[in-house]
Amino acid sequence: MLQENDQKCIDECLKCMQACNLCYDACLKEDNVKMMASCIRLNRECADICSFAAEAMSRNSEFVKHICGMCVEICQTCGAECDKHKATHCQECAEACHECAETCQKMIG
Amino acid sequence: MLQENDQKCIDECLKCMQACNLCYDACLKEDNVKMMASCIRLNRECADICSFAAEAMSRNSEFVKHICGMCVEICQTCGAECDKHKATHCQECAEACHECAETCQKMIG
Amino acid sequence: MLQENDQKCIDECLKCMQACNLCYDACLKEDNVKMMASCIRLNRECADICSFAAEAMSRNSEFVKHICGMCVEICQTCGAECDKHKATHCQECAEACHECAETCQKMIG
Amino acid sequence: MLQENDQKCIDECLKCMQACNLCYDACLKEDNVKMMASCIRLNRECADICSFAAEAMSRNSEFVKHICGMCVEICQTCGAECDKHKATHCQECAEACHECAETCQKMIG
Repeated sequence: MLQENDQKCIDECLKCMQACNLCYDACLKEDNVKMMASCIRLNRECADICSFAAEAMSRNSEFVKHICGMCVEICQTCGAECDKHKATHCQECAEACHECAETCQKMIG
Repeated sequence: MLQENDQKCIDECLKCMQACNLCYDACLKEDNVKMMASCIRLNRECADICSFAAEAMSRNSEFVKHICGMCVEICQTCGAECDKHKATHCQECAEACHECAETCQKMIG
Repeated sequence: MLQENDQKCIDECLKCMQACNLCYDACLKEDNVKMMASCIRLNRECADICSFAAEAMSRNSEFVKHICGMCVEICQTCGAECDKHKATHCQECAEACHECAETCQKMIG
Repeated sequence: MLQENDQKCIDECLKCMQACNLCYDACLKEDNVKMMASCIRLNRECADICSFAAEAMSRNSEFVKHICGMCVEICQTCGAECDKHKATHCQECAEACHECAETCQKMIG
């Protein structure tokens, strides 16, 4: 059994992973892909670390704090990039990134 | 926006990934680790493909059906192994594996 | 100790993973990113499955043949897309994809 | 084109990933699996972060230093555990872990 905080952190990471991948897919279909290049790149970075962190937490890795610290940094950077764009997928992704960063930060303590 | 079926499949894969990693962690703490060696090994295989499939679906990969087909096979194998053991973590993991295999199978059509 | 064929297959997968990620990075820096959208998307798919396959082979997974079969399909698709573009990174990536697909196909037998 | 240092770091990470997964497979086949439980667990942690770091470096991720810093920590921990065991697979894995930690440390500067 995981503790409540850990489960919340896993849930936020997995929600953020999905929002980032959905945003990545949508950015690659935009007319102006060039404008979304940084967003595409950061979406992948963020989806991959969120997925990695969720796996690490669920297997009770002893490195969870370090891994979630990396998640905070990458989520903040991706969220800040998504904040710049008006598309709904970017706005929703930004929100998921900021929430995930906050939850990971709390978990680290 | 993902279709309802896809979202259900992502959810089942992520639930199964967590059940497998939790079972993996618990098996490694059992007194009789040797008896759990196959379970440990399959838990990792299954967690990793479920995580991979969830990422692929959420980024709208064109290879989703092939990837989920692999998920079906690995979930069935892991579920069958977990069925052999009485520990709660194995029983819960078996259930998650069988549900994930079924949902992926439906998604493939 | 891995058998010679398996090691060659791991090596090709890891070479292909690197070529795909290098091509992904370069495509995102091109002036005409829109023209490279499919390439970017396939580079990520291909890098991720190659990395997954290399991990699976090196841990002696019982699902190696199925996983490498997926690798063949994705490498062929990515290689065919890269073939369409004249940039050196695409040409080199195409070559790595075709070689990896061929090696995986031989391994499956 | 990657710089020489980056390529060396990718190579060491991928070598370490393979050594860890080979050690993981071999540990699960040992008569005394219980004695190897920590080693099995750390082998997976280490293989997964090494693979993650190699992908990040090859796609020119802006988070490479943070990711490689995590690699240093996990490689050192896994190497120290492998050092305790006499089996050839553990000794070879320990060596790969220590080399990878050192190379990542140099790369971070």
